[in-house]
Amino acid sequence: MTRKINFNAGPAGLPLSVLEEARDEFTDYRGTGMSIVEHSHRGKAYEAAHNEALSLFGELLGLPSTHAVLALQGGASLQFAMLPLNFLPAGRSADYIVTGHWAKTAFNEAGKVGTVRKAADTAEADKRYVRLPRPDDISIDPKAAYVHMTSNNTIFGTQWTSLPDAKGLPLVSDMSSDILSRPIDAAQHSMIYAGAQKNLGPSGLTVVAVRKDWLKESRTDIPDILRYQKHLDANSLYHTPPSFGVYLFGLNLKWIKANGGAKGMETRNKTKADLLYGALDRLTGFYAAPVEKASRSWMNVVFRTPKPELDDLFCAEAEKAGMTGLKGHRSAGGVRASLYNAVSPENVKTLVSFMEDFAQRKG
Amino acid sequence: MTRKINFNAGPAGLPLSVLEEARDEFTDYRGTGMSIVEHSHRGKAYEAAHNEALSLFGELLGLPSTHAVLALQGGASLQFAMLPLNFLPAGRSADYIVTGHWAKTAFNEAGKVGTVRKAADTAEADKRYVRLPRPDDISIDPKAAYVHMTSNNTIFGTQWTSLPDAKGLPLVSDMSSDILSRPIDAAQHSMIYAGAQKNLGPSGLTVVAVRKDWLKESRTDIPDILRYQKHLDANSLYHTPPSFGVYLFGLNLKWIKANGGAKGMETRNKTKADLLYGALDRLTGFYAAPVEKASRSWMNVVFRTPKPELDDLFCAEAEKAGMTGLKGHRSAGGVRASLYNAVSPENVKTLVSFMEDFAQRKG
Repeated sequence: MTRKINFNAGPAGLPLSVLEEARDEFTDYRGTGMSIVEHSHRGKAYEAAHNEALSLFGELLGLPSTHAVLALQGGASLQFAMLPLNFLPAGRSADYIVTGHWAKTAFNEAGKVGTVRKAADTAEADKRYVRLPRPDDISIDPKAAYVHMTSNNTIFGTQWTSLPDAKGLPLVSDMSSDILSRPIDAAQHSMIYAGAQKNLGPSGLTVVAVRKDWLKESRTDIPDILRYQKHLDANSLYHTPPSFGVYLFGLNLKWIKANGGAKGMETRNKTKADLLYGALDRLTGFYAAPVEKASRSWMNVVFRTPKPELDDLFCAEAEKAGMTGLKGHRSAGGVRASLYNAVSPENVKTLVSFMEDFAQRKG
Repeated sequence: MTRKINFNAGPAGLPLSVLEEARDEFTDYRGTGMSIVEHSHRGKAYEAAHNEALSLFGELLGLPSTHAVLALQGGASLQFAMLPLNFLPAGRSADYIVTGHWAKTAFNEAGKVGTVRKAADTAEADKRYVRLPRPDDISIDPKAAYVHMTSNNTIFGTQWTSLPDAKGLPLVSDMSSDILSRPIDAAQHSMIYAGAQKNLGPSGLTVVAVRKDWLKESRTDIPDILRYQKHLDANSLYHTPPSFGVYLFGLNLKWIKANGGAKGMETRNKTKADLLYGALDRLTGFYAAPVEKASRSWMNVVFRTPKPELDDLFCAEAEKAGMTGLKGHRSAGGVRASLYNAVSPENVKTLVSFMEDFAQRKG
């Protein structure tokens, strides 16, 4: 059938050209007589793909040589545990800036490992997550082991545009839903992590960028599989990597590079966000966009029609019109359009036309 | 080029028909207009593939309804940590039967979590791992929280043919390298786990079969991502699963089923092992097979030529003849032929002919 327009929150769409390249060499990887999934992770063919992907990721992220890139498994969810296991020793506390569901989950999971503290929680003031904290909302414990933030809140549709002041403490950011969607100042972070399945590649791969000298402070008395240092020492081959995921991540990074890198993605993603928020701001008589303008995410745009039944109808009719993944998260309801890198401006124009038509018919 | 004969220890070969099926629907999964990697893990298309794969795995393993199947990430290596985190509380001890490199790693990793004890270590008596423990070699602590074993030792080429007496304690087996290679008595195990990348599918997926009532005893004060119970409660969708891996695992399970299930694999794998060990027993003037006959693995056959230089030449010439992955593990040296499910008897015949010719030329 014709290709769906994919607004899924993740796993998400990938560029068709990337999928076609993977398909074309799937049973015979570059003349080796084997699929990439059949290659040993200790063999030359896979190792070349692995090293190229990790290196290109660092390049596109603008990562300084003080930091290293790791390819891990377990999603951001495992990072919620690995981060405090490595960096939150007994007798210390870590600060969490809570701005949504996943930020809160990171906070709760770390609380099973050690002492944690909320440096901010916007839902406490507002009853729900509709904005990012203002500088005054954030109180950092100057003795905290690190400060954790979530750069983009997938469910509630908010995104940081400038970094909070971490008072010189190690800043750790979960960038699962906006990594490489625009340039960032990577050097300001002691650690960045992201599940790959939104902007980077397929699910099952997690990438971590971490300051190497910070690793020297990490705990050594936990199982090796959970130690960042062990993965770094082994070039992310401490154990069998998710090789197909790393390979497809590498192909997708080449597509990002060919399309202008993080800067190119910024232009593309701003165009898309402007199109969709522009429509929401024009059609305020019908659609409601709950997020404060200054906190709006370019990646996940959440809105509602006048009634929950109309939200459902909107998603069902959009599906028939070839657009999938528009249903809001079950905890938030409404409609959500995720505009990750692979979504094109044309795709968003199709959505906007549909929205205009739907509002006219149902308004 | 022509297809390689793949003797890799893992990631390993998969049946060509399985790879071709995945390739043919890679950009458009069953008429949905999207790749399987682009589908939401909360959507109908992926969930159907997920449920079918997990259910078929339980069926092929002969798993009783007392047990549940989980699809996780992190390989057997993460299980080395998750198992004691869940089942080894403070004040208790766990028993490990150490029969090779990975068994020892499992023991060492659990030692970072709690108190562990060796119920046996064959290398202590023999200086190296060339056999499985005899019943007299094993001493079980009757108060142990569980007994851990490794059903097949990938590096040293030994494999259990009957289970050790766990004295009624929960028995946990790492079956990464022989899962579904022949029928087992699944009900005798409180837990079975396996990285998928040898007999089951691609790397990045780990399957666990666990007794549900044992889970009730597991710790609740650890991060949720590391709790088996949380994964079970969410049908292995607690977080985003490695969806392509689960999908390819499902396709490969259908191939196993179509080829007679575990019983069919047993016939196929016995034929292969008989061919290769038969040749080694005929050509004893040239090749040496260090493993005691009663402990020989059907999955990983290790042997040596008279000299390390000849081992290297053997592997290099075999590679030119279209056979890959024969180099022994770096810690063991020599030659290793891994005969996982996807390797055909014809492939082994090709290897045996090559071995005969090589012995004649170099002997």
